[in-house]
Amino acid sequence: MENIKEIISAYSAAFNTRLPEFFPIKTAPESRVVEAMKYSVLNGGKRLRPFLLNESAALFGLNFDQTLRTAVSLECLHSYSLIHDDLPAMDNDDLRRGKPTCHKAFDEATAILAGDGLLTYAFEILGSEKTHPSAEIRIKLIELLSTAAGAFNGMVAGQMLDLYAETAQSANTENLIKHIEEMKTGRLIRYACEAGAVLGIASAEEQQSLASYARKIGIAFQIADDILDVEGDASLVGKTLHKDIQQGKATFVSLYGLEEAKKMAGRHIDDAKETIAGAFGARAHRLQLLADFIISRKY
Amino acid sequence: MENIKEIISAYSAAFNTRLPEFFPIKTAPESRVVEAMKYSVLNGGKRLRPFLLNESAALFGLNFDQTLRTAVSLECLHSYSLIHDDLPAMDNDDLRRGKPTCHKAFDEATAILAGDGLLTYAFEILGSEKTHPSAEIRIKLIELLSTAAGAFNGMVAGQMLDLYAETAQSANTENLIKHIEEMKTGRLIRYACEAGAVLGIASAEEQQSLASYARKIGIAFQIADDILDVEGDASLVGKTLHKDIQQGKATFVSLYGLEEAKKMAGRHIDDAKETIAGAFGARAHRLQLLADFIISRKY
Repeated sequence: MENIKEIISAYSAAFNTRLPEFFPIKTAPESRVVEAMKYSVLNGGKRLRPFLLNESAALFGLNFDQTLRTAVSLECLHSYSLIHDDLPAMDNDDLRRGKPTCHKAFDEATAILAGDGLLTYAFEILGSEKTHPSAEIRIKLIELLSTAAGAFNGMVAGQMLDLYAETAQSANTENLIKHIEEMKTGRLIRYACEAGAVLGIASAEEQQSLASYARKIGIAFQIADDILDVEGDASLVGKTLHKDIQQGKATFVSLYGLEEAKKMAGRHIDDAKETIAGAFGARAHRLQLLADFIISRKY
Repeated sequence: MENIKEIISAYSAAFNTRLPEFFPIKTAPESRVVEAMKYSVLNGGKRLRPFLLNESAALFGLNFDQTLRTAVSLECLHSYSLIHDDLPAMDNDDLRRGKPTCHKAFDEATAILAGDGLLTYAFEILGSEKTHPSAEIRIKLIELLSTAAGAFNGMVAGQMLDLYAETAQSANTENLIKHIEEMKTGRLIRYACEAGAVLGIASAEEQQSLASYARKIGIAFQIADDILDVEGDASLVGKTLHKDIQQGKATFVSLYGLEEAKKMAGRHIDDAKETIAGAFGARAHRLQLLADFIISRKY
């Protein structure tokens, strides 16, 4: 386990070193919004999504530099969703990874614009030929990202359903949670693997295996999050815990209990490892370790 | 003049007829965000940007159907910016074209998500091969739209600068206003013409002429807006007037006076007409009429 933590840390450090060059600050008043974008993206966590994208592409021989721009685009998209989620009208969070949220560090209007700017930038990065010489490849990435992040069946739809679930007395809570999480966090995790496959010019079969792996670790990731909310160490996790219980929110833990939730997560992880090993053999070693890491992480 | 008003109305009616098919509503709770998106986009004005895009492409022989998806994408982008601009933390407007703004008709969280959804959808539409069979063309549109709408030198930057200008005592108000308007509204108007040129596979020279025309009508459009704010008829314009004066906001009218502002707008329109006629001759007749319409409109 120590090993994969170190690998992720090394990737994350390299990624963080390169991030600032994507956010040039001019001495102009409108650069305030770029500062807010940079502030939010730089206050990153484990960079799991970029790492997952990079490792998926590595299956096909691609290196860090060849995946960097696509990975940064994904992290911009992820950061925008956090900024808007934290807004007073949404989750109203003051802290994110131990630091003031964007609207606290700047102001609400700037935070709305910073989110808009990051979302737009995610597509600007993918559109540029610096990301990949082939327009076909870039278009494929844009198609996948826009549907994964979108309002019809993607992240925005998941966020909408999450808001609905907070107030509704639903008849079918299990399906509701699964559906929320699949759209809200699962789609972007799946995109990470799919984008790696697209960059690696994977076969349709390889793409499917990666997507299937991603679906399984995605659901395990969310169960693990729910478990951390109950038994995590706030100083390690870096956010307010026990929020789900206080808000009376249905989670995998409230539905199944702690032990059964852990078993469920474990089963998904075993499935994911089997899928990826079946498709890629020993090359998939890191993605297998990553799967284990997802349920063993303490933060 | 009656003529171009009728032409715009006919385009707008045809455009509005096709819009709903872009917003399929499922009987699922998360479809609330799609309803909010649809509500906002359908509450449209003159559809000037789509019209401009369509007329620019028409210079190269393209028809309504061939430009529709690109035009809808642009209108989604425009609508997202209006939804977010209207939010309490931004301009805090209750009415938009005589109807409740998105956050009034729905709620603030849904309005934030609806804006995010429309912004994402703009790129999803452009990414799809239904928009144009060539990936190169679609990528070019995405590059242009993302930079025109973005935080570095585009619409989001313009919005940030506008917020700054409301509080700052600037030493150089004229340049400031021009710079705000160029980014906040000008870039999207320019994109409309550029996108028409890209769809029409225009030469570099033709693209430049269209961009130059767009820059000139863009600035005239903003001056006309400032004039309407002073002497418009609220029932025709469909929004609160005299807001600029009440907020002590610098405008072209407050800087130059009503008469000089009208002359300035007129000069930009004359320039624009000359540019476009020089490049396209009689084919540019409608774009010339449109230029005149921009400063003569009463709404």
